[in-house]
Amino acid sequence: MHKIYRVNMTDLSVKIEPVPEAWAGLGGRALTSTIVAAEVPPTAHALGPNNKLVFAPGLLSGTAASNAGRFSCGAKSPLTGGIKESSAGGTASRIIARLGIKAIVIEGQPAGDTWYSLVVSKDGVEIRPETETLGMGTFAVVEKVNERLGEDFAVITLGPAGEHLMAISNISVKDPESKIRSFGRGGLGGVMGSKKIKFIAVDPTGGAALKLADPAKFKAANLTFTKTLNDHPVSGQGLKKYGTAVLVNVINEAGGLPTKNFTSGQCENHDAFSGETMYDNIVARGGEPSHGCSIGCQIQCSQVYNDKDGKYLTSGFEYETIWALGADGLITDLDVIAEIDNVFDDLGVDSIETPVMFAVAMEAGLLPWGDGKRMLQILREDIAKATPLGRLLGGGTGHVGRAFGLTRIPVVKNQAIPAYDPRPIKGIGVTYATTTQGADHTAGYAIATNILNVGGKVDPLKNEGQVELSRNLQIATAAVDSTGLCLFIAFPALDIPECLGSVVDMLNARYGLSLTGDDVVALGKHVLKVEHAFNLAAGLGPETDRLPEFFELEPLAPHDVTWDMDQKELATFWNF
Amino acid sequence: MHKIYRVNMTDLSVKIEPVPEAWAGLGGRALTSTIVAAEVPPTAHALGPNNKLVFAPGLLSGTAASNAGRFSCGAKSPLTGGIKESSAGGTASRIIARLGIKAIVIEGQPAGDTWYSLVVSKDGVEIRPETETLGMGTFAVVEKVNERLGEDFAVITLGPAGEHLMAISNISVKDPESKIRSFGRGGLGGVMGSKKIKFIAVDPTGGAALKLADPAKFKAANLTFTKTLNDHPVSGQGLKKYGTAVLVNVINEAGGLPTKNFTSGQCENHDAFSGETMYDNIVARGGEPSHGCSIGCQIQCSQVYNDKDGKYLTSGFEYETIWALGADGLITDLDVIAEIDNVFDDLGVDSIETPVMFAVAMEAGLLPWGDGKRMLQILREDIAKATPLGRLLGGGTGHVGRAFGLTRIPVVKNQAIPAYDPRPIKGIGVTYATTTQGADHTAGYAIATNILNVGGKVDPLKNEGQVELSRNLQIATAAVDSTGLCLFIAFPALDIPECLGSVVDMLNARYGLSLTGDDVVALGKHVLKVEHAFNLAAGLGPETDRLPEFFELEPLAPHDVTWDMDQKELATFWNF
Repeated sequence: MHKIYRVNMTDLSVKIEPVPEAWAGLGGRALTSTIVAAEVPPTAHALGPNNKLVFAPGLLSGTAASNAGRFSCGAKSPLTGGIKESSAGGTASRIIARLGIKAIVIEGQPAGDTWYSLVVSKDGVEIRPETETLGMGTFAVVEKVNERLGEDFAVITLGPAGEHLMAISNISVKDPESKIRSFGRGGLGGVMGSKKIKFIAVDPTGGAALKLADPAKFKAANLTFTKTLNDHPVSGQGLKKYGTAVLVNVINEAGGLPTKNFTSGQCENHDAFSGETMYDNIVARGGEPSHGCSIGCQIQCSQVYNDKDGKYLTSGFEYETIWALGADGLITDLDVIAEIDNVFDDLGVDSIETPVMFAVAMEAGLLPWGDGKRMLQILREDIAKATPLGRLLGGGTGHVGRAFGLTRIPVVKNQAIPAYDPRPIKGIGVTYATTTQGADHTAGYAIATNILNVGGKVDPLKNEGQVELSRNLQIATAAVDSTGLCLFIAFPALDIPECLGSVVDMLNARYGLSLTGDDVVALGKHVLKVEHAFNLAAGLGPETDRLPEFFELEPLAPHDVTWDMDQKELATFWNF
Repeated sequence: MHKIYRVNMTDLSVKIEPVPEAWAGLGGRALTSTIVAAEVPPTAHALGPNNKLVFAPGLLSGTAASNAGRFSCGAKSPLTGGIKESSAGGTASRIIARLGIKAIVIEGQPAGDTWYSLVVSKDGVEIRPETETLGMGTFAVVEKVNERLGEDFAVITLGPAGEHLMAISNISVKDPESKIRSFGRGGLGGVMGSKKIKFIAVDPTGGAALKLADPAKFKAANLTFTKTLNDHPVSGQGLKKYGTAVLVNVINEAGGLPTKNFTSGQCENHDAFSGETMYDNIVARGGEPSHGCSIGCQIQCSQVYNDKDGKYLTSGFEYETIWALGADGLITDLDVIAEIDNVFDDLGVDSIETPVMFAVAMEAGLLPWGDGKRMLQILREDIAKATPLGRLLGGGTGHVGRAFGLTRIPVVKNQAIPAYDPRPIKGIGVTYATTTQGADHTAGYAIATNILNVGGKVDPLKNEGQVELSRNLQIATAAVDSTGLCLFIAFPALDIPECLGSVVDMLNARYGLSLTGDDVVALGKHVLKVEHAFNLAAGLGPETDRLPEFFELEPLAPHDVTWDMDQKELATFWNF
């Protein structure tokens, strides 16, 4: 990976640049965050010409390493006002890596009303005016690009929400079955939309196996690595069978399943939308319980979920989305939840931000609790078409909560809090409050150690040890996000000693380096510090590293606990 | 003024407290900001139980001093997220001062759905359940309270917007003719609404002339002070004849009249809604060109503006509102502008935030440019009734701009920028960027010295001297806002040496003190520092002391200038 493609949408020019020496050792999140921090003025308007949208495969993307298909996208977030890195599966990361492209940087914005597509190839980027796919949902865009250019092209596209520059919009990536994976969070669809790019197609022609400094060592390390993935009960069994929805019953049992807009920690209907129920439905209806989001995936946490008639309903059906619709919004019919999930993908909206927003709208009385049919109608009629109601909701959870004058608005840095209540699971609260990304469980998944007893055990109900836990997880996550490896490798990495060593060995064998585990930790720290400095300069000071006040004021059943961590203790997070 | 009324809306209790020694020398803004800063956690939700709503007359309110009828209201702002002090005319300040009440502090919030009214008297505060006036516009509430309690009661009330907790809502105060004056900015109506108080009535019974330490000295000083008000051409002539709308032609001529959502500095239709046209209409239709907002006003910048049939349309018809509708929103019919102004008052919405928001909505295509009839319809049908469209718009300028993904959103700290473009009038840009209040021309009215040649002359097109100008004005303003005197006393205060001295003499004669001009300056500095410390702790750090990026990127005709002041220079504002 020896070149950077730079696309200027102001003058519609393209440059192919060599990789600066300082960026040579970076990939994925480390690279996108470094470029955004270096080139975007922190106070720039996120939808203006000074923001940049950066895509980068990880350091191991394009190799034969297991689970190395993740793709990174970075920009200043229109939702949080801070830096954003989002990760997606799909086919793009592998294809781009094998074309030797280390990053694609999209800058500027066109003055007129013309929309464009980008066609990326080994020779550069062609910027083409685009009309046919405008207004289309993401599935139709993928189908159209498959027809127009070929099924082997990677596709990165917007749905209608991204075209409308909505803060709930995401960026969609075609997966191996021409379904949708997403750069879900932070409203990145709006950034791509503000540059008037409907889709990016990537021609795999000329892509080649990546040169490895030590092929034998790489192969051996990958074998060890893959074995640890298969040996760990979470990555090798739980996720494979039940998907991430395995967590519905686990988190409900822990009393941390936010229900009815974060007013209870348990949901009486949890069985209706649990991973176990999902699995039974899949098997009974001829779906696929185990499925990968990208080539080389061992974990197979995705699935194909069919309706009662055996017709495809959705895939990539995640716990956080199911939770938000089922528990937070009280929609008890898993098939309706699946249908909504598919519409989220088609419109190109964040499947966490959007349902959490709907639960807030339910609390505000805009639609009845649990009314999935009305939600589908609003999605298709109002959000897709950007009616005034669609605009109100398209601004996301914080936007809707403020419009109705609510006090129970579950956001940090204006991004919706996902599926784990921080009152009885305090480690995840530290992550929500301190991560550079706005509320984001993936930034430092303390659930592992608070609830799943992975990487040891820290009592979820006590504040002791949570800052250190979250800090270590956030550092490790930032490093993993830079490799192109799936975050779920963290489960074996936390419990099986050989795992992390094999990842370091793969990096060394790929690039001819002699990194140690300490170097990986140093990379993670560097990423966090780069991102944090950007946020501080953007105006997200230490006062924004906090949970909303209602967590301090409203005790949560069944543990009857509030969020009571001292802000001074929280601030020690950054002492590294 | 020797007592503080403290109303707890959580347990519906009232306490009458003596004035703490530290607050004895404070009034108006100095007192409300000091109480808010001392008692409201800076990170509290502005609509939650931990915010407090504080009302205070000024240090000279209730005396015979000219133009001392201003009333101060403070809280954490739901719009800006920072501290807010707003000033209004009307009868309340004088009545409350003469009851010996130094401040009314309203805290907590009721758990249930019951709304309340407060009846304040010399003996305390009665908290009464209220139903009859719910949903009513402010004019109807005032009429109802006049009937129910008596015409001599002061009334402080919400319109529907405040009941709906909208960020554009304000708090209305009855004026001597039972018309409406407003605590306009910062969404304070939502704070009162969150405490479920529809109106506060104040019984004047038992109010008495305030004791003066030196009545003869007070009388002499007031005579001198009043003469300076009458002698200055702005306060003595321009404002009296044309109202604040005298500025339409002046600011247009200066090229600083923001037009069509801040895309030009001149409006070709300016004559249609100028102060001169307003004056001609008033005289031709039997209105009143000169009118006061409170007892004792010498300047009489208000008016009674009638329609073509001589029927009352509006009063308190201000330049900023006329600008926002006429130039920024391209509504050219002054009678339509007047009708809208009256509806703003009736709904209880900020007549700056709301029309600036509408111009942004026009740019977004939500309604046609210049369509005042459609605006009236939206106000009456959607904002008054809080439909989804009303909720979208009720969030204010920033909220609407973000919902539509616009980049040209004229706000600072999320509060709409008023009627003076900062690109060709750089002094006011410094005020917008640095004031603790969010964009607010009254916080440091650099127009005086940049454009009107009051208090000397600083070239509006140059950056030199603007920070110092704005700093001096903001300090002086904070002091004036603490006296209960109208801000327009600044015109003679800046030009006529006797003016400021006579104000200091009145303060000394009232309280038996021996303050000097330096003490007044020290008070102003203290107020700004207290407010600034609150904002910093609330998360409004130095990065938020800036203008939106579009002012740097888009040159403004006719001077073809951008905002180009260095942030480091701006930051020197706080060096005092």
